[in-house]
Amino acid sequence: MNLSRRNFIKTVSAVTAGTTILPNIAIASIMKPIKSKKLKLTFRTYELQLKHTFTVAEYSRDTTPVVLTELEYDGIIGYGEASMPPYLGESHKSVTSFLSKVNLSQFNDPFRIDDILTYVDSVDKKNRAAKASVDIALHDLIGKIVNQPLYKLWGLNPDKTPVTSFTIGIDKPDVVRTKTKEAKGFKVLKVKLGRGNDKEMINAVRDITNVPLYVDVNQGWKNKENALDMIHWLKEKGVIFIEQPLPKENIDDMAWLTQNSPLPTMADEAFQRLSDVAKFKGVYSGINIKLMKSTGLREAHKMITVAKALEMKVMMGCMTETSCAVSAAAQLSPLVDWADLDGNLLISNDVYEGVKVIDGKITLNNLPGIGIRKL
Amino acid sequence: MNLSRRNFIKTVSAVTAGTTILPNIAIASIMKPIKSKKLKLTFRTYELQLKHTFTVAEYSRDTTPVVLTELEYDGIIGYGEASMPPYLGESHKSVTSFLSKVNLSQFNDPFRIDDILTYVDSVDKKNRAAKASVDIALHDLIGKIVNQPLYKLWGLNPDKTPVTSFTIGIDKPDVVRTKTKEAKGFKVLKVKLGRGNDKEMINAVRDITNVPLYVDVNQGWKNKENALDMIHWLKEKGVIFIEQPLPKENIDDMAWLTQNSPLPTMADEAFQRLSDVAKFKGVYSGINIKLMKSTGLREAHKMITVAKALEMKVMMGCMTETSCAVSAAAQLSPLVDWADLDGNLLISNDVYEGVKVIDGKITLNNLPGIGIRKL
Repeated sequence: MNLSRRNFIKTVSAVTAGTTILPNIAIASIMKPIKSKKLKLTFRTYELQLKHTFTVAEYSRDTTPVVLTELEYDGIIGYGEASMPPYLGESHKSVTSFLSKVNLSQFNDPFRIDDILTYVDSVDKKNRAAKASVDIALHDLIGKIVNQPLYKLWGLNPDKTPVTSFTIGIDKPDVVRTKTKEAKGFKVLKVKLGRGNDKEMINAVRDITNVPLYVDVNQGWKNKENALDMIHWLKEKGVIFIEQPLPKENIDDMAWLTQNSPLPTMADEAFQRLSDVAKFKGVYSGINIKLMKSTGLREAHKMITVAKALEMKVMMGCMTETSCAVSAAAQLSPLVDWADLDGNLLISNDVYEGVKVIDGKITLNNLPGIGIRKL
Repeated sequence: MNLSRRNFIKTVSAVTAGTTILPNIAIASIMKPIKSKKLKLTFRTYELQLKHTFTVAEYSRDTTPVVLTELEYDGIIGYGEASMPPYLGESHKSVTSFLSKVNLSQFNDPFRIDDILTYVDSVDKKNRAAKASVDIALHDLIGKIVNQPLYKLWGLNPDKTPVTSFTIGIDKPDVVRTKTKEAKGFKVLKVKLGRGNDKEMINAVRDITNVPLYVDVNQGWKNKENALDMIHWLKEKGVIFIEQPLPKENIDDMAWLTQNSPLPTMADEAFQRLSDVAKFKGVYSGINIKLMKSTGLREAHKMITVAKALEMKVMMGCMTETSCAVSAAAQLSPLVDWADLDGNLLISNDVYEGVKVIDGKITLNNLPGIGIRKL
């Protein structure tokens, strides 16, 4: 049990309804029923420990801060999570500050998802991970109330989940070879590139395995012609797509690269929310949706619908997260082309169990809501 | 009770599982459980009687053929409907022929909505109303299984339903005045134009009421400059939008008209399914979604999401239908800008009761699924 660290718990909306003293039963019976059921949001900070130091094009780190939420209604509890890798600008402080401003006691029906999440979105700008932590908990709660997994409520076939990639960070060839050996249960690997040792990285992986590869450059390439040359080389090495090859600001270069690339290009850092989807049609081949960018499941689901209608590819990704946020994202995964939902596998102190990776494939269970249990 | 006419009932998928004779209980206990729960689709033809002869730009009629479906699973029954106004090319014969080919006995989980409706869509091309009759019944069934109205499962606030327009068909001024007087409970009227007496029609309505008007031309205008002149005149008369002003083939003229029009233009006949939405961005201001065009609720819901993401207006319309299909469409109506859901009010022999129009507003109830009861 990893919960014995010093965390603070804060109750945002107290359950204080129902204390009116009624003069007599006759009057009570003609009054409207007193709504004693309220949504009650609590949250606490937590620090995820990474199994390996995580290195991408821009930085390295050993931990990821998260905030774990619980949303209670009528004795049923939905779980949520915000994960805050530092490059996205959120933190323990910003998330707890945001959640302290969220007053859900004004809602007495958790099924008013649109109203509740529109309100949460209006509390302050940005704070996308903080907003996701409410969205996930609310969806988990709804699923538990009707006693169905979310994938069922969305009409999806759980057998249609994709395989998930496992991420290989940037490192020296011998470390990469060791990590690749450790990942032998996965049917596809995602290799981080963009720090100048791209061919060395891919060759080290290919020393060990012939599985298909996804490549994530994290904006690390600066020149479109060099990028195109590298993509041609990567295609020969069995790479399936290239994520965020150029700096997110380089829209024109990116459109040129997508038009000329022999592999699909996927937007990640360039792209956050639903309103971004249509404007990247033609700039990237597709989008990498993450709950911590999209503000949660409600908007992620809409993004999938819109991207598919625009004939764009869809990938579902994650941050380093517990099984809470990863299992939530997995509920939507039967809809996507590719998944990179390994965030919970990268940490040593998960607090939930939920979706499993079995024979490389995301495997949903029959639990209601997002499908998790506390460890 | 209007069901005493001669209708045929046909069982498409017989419930015949579970007849295996097991040698003994010990073996039975190690076998997989026998799936005795199957989806069972039945249907019958019906003829809707219109209260008034219905006249639009192209034709007149007094009846509308429909097919009423029932989808049973584990003793729970979902209701559906196909409505076939003649101009859409479906009929009693085509719908019953299509439904006879639909074999749902291959599915033993009604929550596999995506798989089931993808299969139904693949049975034959077109047949959109026939497909909707399965989609609606399946959604009603799911709602009943989890005992929630669909609007709740979709997270919508039932208080956010729009007012519905009531349709005034093309006729002589005195008849139009009489019809307009009869429609005094409605907060907005939809006036059919396009047969050369447009100003006479509007003036007759304006003799009686000052409520806002929607205008539906049903492709009746042939010249874009004349159309623009008329739209300017209609704006002065309190019209909110113009539906299908030009023939559906005139894409370039329509884009010109939309660009210059002081009122939003809405696609109806030009537009059927999800794949049509994005290509009409810039050609029309928005789309009129009808379940009988979209193949049902699943695709209609996606169309709303896509249209809104593309900043297009969304209207929910209907055919002459019973309260079954109208109540189904009403479940989505909190999401739309405008609604024209009066199809059940135009007939004298409804078979269900469901959504009500109260003080002009679409009013959802708490019944599960699409929210209807058999009369």
